[in-house]
Amino acid sequence: MQKAAQKWRIRLKIRNFQSGDLGYAQSLRTLKEHGVNNGKMNVDEILTHVDHTLLLQTATWDEIKEICDDAIRYKTASVCIPPCYVKQAGEYVQGKMKVCTVIGFPNGNMTTKVKEFETRDAVANGASEIDMVINIGWLKDKRYDAVEEEIRILKEACQGKILKVIIETCLLTEEEKIRMCGIVTKAGADYIKTSTGFSGGGATFDDVSLFAEHVGNGVKIKAAGGIASLEDAERFLALGADRLGTSRIVKMIRNG
Amino acid sequence: MQKAAQKWRIRLKIRNFQSGDLGYAQSLRTLKEHGVNNGKMNVDEILTHVDHTLLLQTATWDEIKEICDDAIRYKTASVCIPPCYVKQAGEYVQGKMKVCTVIGFPNGNMTTKVKEFETRDAVANGASEIDMVINIGWLKDKRYDAVEEEIRILKEACQGKILKVIIETCLLTEEEKIRMCGIVTKAGADYIKTSTGFSGGGATFDDVSLFAEHVGNGVKIKAAGGIASLEDAERFLALGADRLGTSRIVKMIRNG
Repeated sequence: MQKAAQKWRIRLKIRNFQSGDLGYAQSLRTLKEHGVNNGKMNVDEILTHVDHTLLLQTATWDEIKEICDDAIRYKTASVCIPPCYVKQAGEYVQGKMKVCTVIGFPNGNMTTKVKEFETRDAVANGASEIDMVINIGWLKDKRYDAVEEEIRILKEACQGKILKVIIETCLLTEEEKIRMCGIVTKAGADYIKTSTGFSGGGATFDDVSLFAEHVGNGVKIKAAGGIASLEDAERFLALGADRLGTSRIVKMIRNG
Repeated sequence: MQKAAQKWRIRLKIRNFQSGDLGYAQSLRTLKEHGVNNGKMNVDEILTHVDHTLLLQTATWDEIKEICDDAIRYKTASVCIPPCYVKQAGEYVQGKMKVCTVIGFPNGNMTTKVKEFETRDAVANGASEIDMVINIGWLKDKRYDAVEEEIRILKEACQGKILKVIIETCLLTEEEKIRMCGIVTKAGADYIKTSTGFSGGGATFDDVSLFAEHVGNGVKIKAAGGIASLEDAERFLALGADRLGTSRIVKMIRNG
């Protein structure tokens, strides 16, 4: 984790990016100033870290298909969609794209039994990656063992598939965020993830840095919610994120 | 439904309420101007229509206990809490208060299989009332049969308990709202409910009036989200609502 972060930091330094939300066109110009091929390669590299995401309640099948088409076209890490579309999307992409879905989403306050059932249902429907939401009320109650046990049960229910644990940073104190880095590590999950995108705030650079400092070896980081430019994306990766939950990066690239 | 609405409308007319958010103290003064006993009786009557609600992701057990205590003290219709607290709350209230919980909440885009399992789990844990969220994406896709079939399956899973169907009005067109009045009626649910309180907007007077006009006999109406004063509460009831999902009414009364 630290090594990867360092690698990205050096790259950023070389490119001497300006801060702020530049948007794709300007980001690409900036990249191209340092060599066209480098610029292009960099965008492709960023895309391999994107979970191309559409979780809106109103999402129709046509919109989900479009997300799948774009994910395949732009070679993202996965397509992240609601549970009710997992089976249909799996049949649609025919193995050309990994399907990621969400469990106990977005509030996390279902019973553990239901979250476990939902995980097994998603895996049976073909999901390769599972993004679960922790029980935030239990964390506030300092029921750390219950929070950890739930993650452990869901990891078991994943049957070898990747488990990402959403802790909804915008609702937590710094102490709770650090506590969750330890719990996610101990419970054996694959990723810690910042946000659902359905609460008061999304990923921040500070939270990703905090995660990078406190998660154990082997636990990767996913930044999600509000990632709106290639420059932001690159900065999250530079700070130690391995995945980015966003739909806007692909949309920007598609729309030039 | 029409008869109840008319009864309330006459009462409102007699009281000659001013419009706007008056707050409890002023509402009570207004009520008392028409006779102290009437005023007091009216507040009690409103409370019998309230599902005293706490669904926040961050809710701790102490907060849930407080909601239960207040619900019992002020004799609300039920206490409406997250699924993970249903069993514990049932043991805590010992039959002195009905426990209501939420299914597929708040986004509604889980699989039907998971929503059915969650309903059975909630009933097994002691829930007397179930507030489910429809699959809004399917509605947008005009998959009316699938939306209806899901409601029917959940009604069956309720095993005689009350089923309320949240259609999340703030995300729907007028045509879709009217369509859902028909679907909820045909599927045999007990209530149609406006909102989760977790999306762009809550209950409106217009939506409750629309429901009253379009639901079939036997289907009741629950208004939820943003109900902030006794006057609002009374107006929703006057327009045909039978239940109100809110925590603020009880809090206002408790805090004088």
